[in-house]
Amino acid sequence: MDQAPATSLQDIVGHAKEYGFVFPSSEIYDGLQAVYDYGQNGVELKNNLKTAWWKAMTQLHDNIVGIDAAIFMHPLTWKASGHIDGFSDPMIDNKDSKKRYRADQLLEAKAEELAAAGEPEKAQALLAEMGRLLSAEDLTGVRELIIAQDIKCAVSGTTNWTEVRQFNLMFSTQVGSVAEDSSTIYLRPETAQGIFVNFLNVQKSGRMKVPFGIAQIGKAFRNEIVARQFTFRMREFEQMEMQFFVRPGTEMTWYNAWKEARMKFHVALGLPADSLQFHDHDKLAHYANAAVDIEYKFPFGFREMEGIHSRTDFDLRNHQDLSKKKQQYFDAELNEDGKPYGNYIPYVVETSVGADRMFLAVFCNAYTVESVGEGDSAKQRTYLKLHPALAPFKAAVLPLVKKDGLAEKAQEVAASLKSTFRTTYDDGAAIGKRYTRQDLIGTPYCIVVDYQTMEDETVTIRHRDTMEQERVAIADLKAKIGYEVAMERILEAI
Amino acid sequence: MDQAPATSLQDIVGHAKEYGFVFPSSEIYDGLQAVYDYGQNGVELKNNLKTAWWKAMTQLHDNIVGIDAAIFMHPLTWKASGHIDGFSDPMIDNKDSKKRYRADQLLEAKAEELAAAGEPEKAQALLAEMGRLLSAEDLTGVRELIIAQDIKCAVSGTTNWTEVRQFNLMFSTQVGSVAEDSSTIYLRPETAQGIFVNFLNVQKSGRMKVPFGIAQIGKAFRNEIVARQFTFRMREFEQMEMQFFVRPGTEMTWYNAWKEARMKFHVALGLPADSLQFHDHDKLAHYANAAVDIEYKFPFGFREMEGIHSRTDFDLRNHQDLSKKKQQYFDAELNEDGKPYGNYIPYVVETSVGADRMFLAVFCNAYTVESVGEGDSAKQRTYLKLHPALAPFKAAVLPLVKKDGLAEKAQEVAASLKSTFRTTYDDGAAIGKRYTRQDLIGTPYCIVVDYQTMEDETVTIRHRDTMEQERVAIADLKAKIGYEVAMERILEAI
Repeated sequence: MDQAPATSLQDIVGHAKEYGFVFPSSEIYDGLQAVYDYGQNGVELKNNLKTAWWKAMTQLHDNIVGIDAAIFMHPLTWKASGHIDGFSDPMIDNKDSKKRYRADQLLEAKAEELAAAGEPEKAQALLAEMGRLLSAEDLTGVRELIIAQDIKCAVSGTTNWTEVRQFNLMFSTQVGSVAEDSSTIYLRPETAQGIFVNFLNVQKSGRMKVPFGIAQIGKAFRNEIVARQFTFRMREFEQMEMQFFVRPGTEMTWYNAWKEARMKFHVALGLPADSLQFHDHDKLAHYANAAVDIEYKFPFGFREMEGIHSRTDFDLRNHQDLSKKKQQYFDAELNEDGKPYGNYIPYVVETSVGADRMFLAVFCNAYTVESVGEGDSAKQRTYLKLHPALAPFKAAVLPLVKKDGLAEKAQEVAASLKSTFRTTYDDGAAIGKRYTRQDLIGTPYCIVVDYQTMEDETVTIRHRDTMEQERVAIADLKAKIGYEVAMERILEAI
Repeated sequence: MDQAPATSLQDIVGHAKEYGFVFPSSEIYDGLQAVYDYGQNGVELKNNLKTAWWKAMTQLHDNIVGIDAAIFMHPLTWKASGHIDGFSDPMIDNKDSKKRYRADQLLEAKAEELAAAGEPEKAQALLAEMGRLLSAEDLTGVRELIIAQDIKCAVSGTTNWTEVRQFNLMFSTQVGSVAEDSSTIYLRPETAQGIFVNFLNVQKSGRMKVPFGIAQIGKAFRNEIVARQFTFRMREFEQMEMQFFVRPGTEMTWYNAWKEARMKFHVALGLPADSLQFHDHDKLAHYANAAVDIEYKFPFGFREMEGIHSRTDFDLRNHQDLSKKKQQYFDAELNEDGKPYGNYIPYVVETSVGADRMFLAVFCNAYTVESVGEGDSAKQRTYLKLHPALAPFKAAVLPLVKKDGLAEKAQEVAASLKSTFRTTYDDGAAIGKRYTRQDLIGTPYCIVVDYQTMEDETVTIRHRDTMEQERVAIADLKAKIGYEVAMERILEAI
């Protein structure tokens, strides 16, 4: 088989829409920028990914439990977390075109330009200067740098720039109908804070002992100035976060353990090790003492899919200070002196995956175009090489032809599998075309009912990836396929 | 066993918080009204309910598929659906107390007062008059009626009322950072519209044939003026909706079929038939030609848990009119004249469950307080009688004592079950106390490792509801418990 040309993001977007994985939101109204809907196959794949993550966290570990905190939270939460004061991007407008840009992105583009023009030192110096100015919150300096670099608006072509201002990325809304009671609340920009404010509720009601983790899957919202790259950066997105509470001083051990564990998870779900890499953060966020990304090789390059962060006691301490409610844990275990470790605010190691990014990674990785056949009869075959436990349908039951009772028999077979795993039935075209339909949505097994079936109660199983066929008794189908497609199989590989 | 006194909502709220099912949102900041977080046991129960619904819809039916549309949608969606113009409550303020009320609720309370005072005809006449005025959008008339009935503010005691105004229940926010591009969008007040705007995307990419359904689980938001009764009426809540697209004229057949199917579902999940009832809508919404609720007997009375509505072609037609994009289906099936039914806008039968209401119903139903023992040794036992497939933990493995290798053996048993179903381990107290802990969170099976286990590799299983014990080989545990706790078992009962 020849290697097909590299997959472009456009191929992915097209396949995702055509085969019911991802649709642009509100498409009949010409869409809503940077928002997407999961279609009938996408939702199954995404749910399976979420289930794998959830079970890997809360079923495989005795000391990790889940929660589901609301999107709405008390606004003081975001004061304590630093999002009200600090969660913003520097923006600048061109006065002639009225077009708005992220100031840092204008400078980054200029640096790339310099590097491409054979001036990497100048590029590096520019980025360093930008970093210095942003850290010092010197927005006037950022503007002056843009002008000094002669950066022009792509629309108007002028350097007629406004001041640089900070733009908060949180969406806000008004809650409460009673006039004197109404207040501004925010759509959470991350799910982590829902875990922090529930730390003591969970620890006490669940009698959890440090080290322990709290896992959560949920929506988060950011009013991104420039949202792009399909489901990679959306204004509404889903996170899978786990905050692991540890004894201060042990955080680096756990940080390293979770780094390895999370990489192993992605490999168990079928992402190849050579498409994944660690990327240590050059610059740490104010709350972190160590941070690394797990990057996947998307069609647009290696980019962050998951972050593992040692967050210290930053969040719990700030919530304690602002709420005046002690966020402490009493550690009864004995230290070297034979005394209990006693009260402390735990340190936190966080693992945070973008569910939509992981979906995109798994989808891109599964998308396969191969040449099959030789010479004149060679043609391209496209299929989704998804892990069977992640595929939207586990099996398709297909009557070879629609007559002589084969269709009824096939429907009977499909019905017998349905309560065990998700099975579809199709009798709508030539058998080859029906195989193709299943290949395109990643169904691992096509079960064909033919004339021999009517005689000996056997069927053929056609395998998606190899296209090989084997004869199996109907009575053995559940045993044969059941375990292959079970989430249990992923859990055992983690 | 004696019948314990009726469960109050307060008992439920207390148990839910103490045992990690439901916490008030942002409790360390004194909470956010009408918003709740699911704790470590609540999230598992809720996820299991959602999985049961999802699989009942998209796995048991060949002609139902799911989607997951974003919460953010193009604002024209809500113009077409009628929510921008019509989704509001009539409000009135008392000028002295500055307190705000729902005008209709003031009148309803007055009617209840009249009925209680032995004047049911007057009460009925008042409600009829209110209905007439609201239908006619005569808000001045509503105010006059409140004054004529001498309804006083509970706080100020006066009848010094403002005008009645309509208050829209949708939350709004601003999206887009680019000044000229920024626009008001809404948090969806129902998930159904995400299905309608994707109707053709799903139908075409999934080659769906009428009749077919699209199912969705997701958050919705309503700025309720009076939110109350725990998770029954929240500002942020979750819906499980399925829109079933049918040929016009066949909708009543499907409406009746779904009525029965949905009732059967709730019974399969363990809600007793005598705690459920149908309640036909007295007054139909403008888009419906038939509507019924499935009500559950909550501690505060029979209230809506699910609605089944025949929505005609109201939504698809309005989206077609506003978007100028045909929302038609070509029906190739032949009619009585031997011709295809041809193009039409399908009619819709909707089933819509409040996931939080269903959670509350299942939780209330499971909450059991029984007297056990006789005479002086009689005491109360509290446990959650949850369907095993819905319980947060399926099994708890408990060493009888923590010494002589029993703890290690028990951990080994727990580990061997973990990839198959969610199992916990507990060695932290006397065995009776540990049974109680599991009873309180609804774990159906306690597996006890004792001295005999060390000799013959058997354990006892203690059953939650009967407290009976039986001896089982460790090797048989998966087979013995596995099916009892599997979602498959619920699916086979539906």
